[in-house]
Amino acid sequence: MSRRRRVTLTDVAVRAGVSATTASYILNGRSAQMRISTPTDERVRNAAAELGYRPNRSARSLRTATTTTIGVISDFVASGHYASQMLTGASAAARESDHLLMIGETEGDAALEERLIDEMLERQVDGILYATLTTRQVTVPQALLQQRVVLVNCIDPGSDLPAVLPDELQAGRTAARLMVDAGITSEVYAVGEDPTPGALSGALRLEGLRYGLEEAGGALAGVIPCDWDVVPARDAVSQWLCSGRMPRGFVCLNDRVAMGVYQALSERRLHVPDVAVVSFDGSDLATWLQPRLTSIAVPYDEMGALAMHRLVEPEGAARDLLAVATVPMVVGWGGSLPDRRAALSRLV
Amino acid sequence: MSRRRRVTLTDVAVRAGVSATTASYILNGRSAQMRISTPTDERVRNAAAELGYRPNRSARSLRTATTTTIGVISDFVASGHYASQMLTGASAAARESDHLLMIGETEGDAALEERLIDEMLERQVDGILYATLTTRQVTVPQALLQQRVVLVNCIDPGSDLPAVLPDELQAGRTAARLMVDAGITSEVYAVGEDPTPGALSGALRLEGLRYGLEEAGGALAGVIPCDWDVVPARDAVSQWLCSGRMPRGFVCLNDRVAMGVYQALSERRLHVPDVAVVSFDGSDLATWLQPRLTSIAVPYDEMGALAMHRLVEPEGAARDLLAVATVPMVVGWGGSLPDRRAALSRLV
Repeated sequence: MSRRRRVTLTDVAVRAGVSATTASYILNGRSAQMRISTPTDERVRNAAAELGYRPNRSARSLRTATTTTIGVISDFVASGHYASQMLTGASAAARESDHLLMIGETEGDAALEERLIDEMLERQVDGILYATLTTRQVTVPQALLQQRVVLVNCIDPGSDLPAVLPDELQAGRTAARLMVDAGITSEVYAVGEDPTPGALSGALRLEGLRYGLEEAGGALAGVIPCDWDVVPARDAVSQWLCSGRMPRGFVCLNDRVAMGVYQALSERRLHVPDVAVVSFDGSDLATWLQPRLTSIAVPYDEMGALAMHRLVEPEGAARDLLAVATVPMVVGWGGSLPDRRAALSRLV
Repeated sequence: MSRRRRVTLTDVAVRAGVSATTASYILNGRSAQMRISTPTDERVRNAAAELGYRPNRSARSLRTATTTTIGVISDFVASGHYASQMLTGASAAARESDHLLMIGETEGDAALEERLIDEMLERQVDGILYATLTTRQVTVPQALLQQRVVLVNCIDPGSDLPAVLPDELQAGRTAARLMVDAGITSEVYAVGEDPTPGALSGALRLEGLRYGLEEAGGALAGVIPCDWDVVPARDAVSQWLCSGRMPRGFVCLNDRVAMGVYQALSERRLHVPDVAVVSFDGSDLATWLQPRLTSIAVPYDEMGALAMHRLVEPEGAARDLLAVATVPMVVGWGGSLPDRRAALSRLV
């Protein structure tokens, strides 16, 4: 596979019969300033178009000290739905200001992370989005501390780097409110306690949930611990139901856990929404389950977009913003709450 | 947010008490060639380390005419699981040769695509991966025809650009073989005919399936058309089952369709694997369904990696390869086929 020789400024100048300097002035929009005649201007532009000349941004970036390129460093930038959504939001926001994204996936490997950051800094990125798959505390690599950086889905308590986080605490309260609105304030169990050190989502969701139920005079009846996936949740809740306890509602820490809960209930011939289910994520899975799952979405795309806007905005504007911005999570309605089903059936 | 002034080669030279030219020779590994003494060499290297000097790749790329950066242009490069897997494979392969990826998501918008390609070419990418979310025919934008390009998950019949595709036809035959091995050669229905113009997966999977069943003396009994998603498949198969027909097996054109088929069967108190189900995708969903779904995976990560290897390899090597490479699809075993369940129960 061959690549055609690059068309240079000199090629354009030769074809137009002018000096390279004149061609450069014209193609950089400085004709008027340099008192270049309109016919010459047109001749050079036509020559450039005919030859397919493209300005060389490597050369331009040496002059302007900007590459209009942003690096995205993440543990799993391209793996999984949530990282993808974040990247899509960041990518769309970058386009608004003609920035392109360069990506580096570290797979959680510190040595690889260091190398990717080095590579990006050598390529003169204008700034770096540093993102994590799970909401958690991090220690940002030393090399980033002197750079223009915004954290996404993580915070570094040891630095003053700005961060964009989902409002997990409020989301937990929202889950509680959904149960309370459905008339359920007791026998509500959380499913999927999160044991990962440094992780924030599980702890904050649970704290918000407890607080919200207590606000309404209720209480969280208990937590059924399990990994955040379908099969572990199915197994844990199946076993828990064997003890003969009868829940009124389950708050699942993500949608995969909720799918496992649906399956465990179905095995015991219990049905949603006779047992109410609320979840977090707002993934496609919530729309596929029968009945549709009520799930509180993490707006990863908005988080990516907000972080990108903060990264590319002028220095002055950034100072007016809080160091940590939280993005509200949004309720997607399904049929997994009894009150909602009644309301819907009244409408039909 | 401020960024510290960049440390230049001159800063290093001043600190080490040498000329910028000498510093440049040393930091580019040309000390011996230029007969520079060891003490001077060490002094410059120490100064560079103390100041945190980084070579400027924008300057270097002007000299070497390479940026070790690859552009990825895709309709939905960051949206969805499959695009993510492709990106992860490409990203890992790029790292092997110290290349970084620059990404551009076109959202299927031709004007945006043109602009993103322009931006990448201006940034002097060494090559471009051009990928699509669905396996299909494309017309590659004019600007790419003179560049170093490899297509992923698509082909352009009007150009001779190399392409990497999944082996969909063989995957269809594999689905047939799974049914035949389970003793089922009649009353097999496909679910999810693909009406999208230019799309290849559906047509090739069906062709392979028909051929594979006929090879075994059977035949495909029919196709239940529906969009490739959970709810459309559930609705279509529910309605189809109302006619009283009794299928022996369903071959679903993707895993979401299979989830809808599971739900439709469950509504009529029919059970998998009494009715056998085979699917394509090999997504997480296949492991979440009860019983686990037998699904034939599209190896998007391998496709991304193979395409990247072809893109960065020396020109000579590329010529020895076929223009279109197909990547075999892989069967992930579940319990959705009767024979398999029997085999497993014999083992327990």
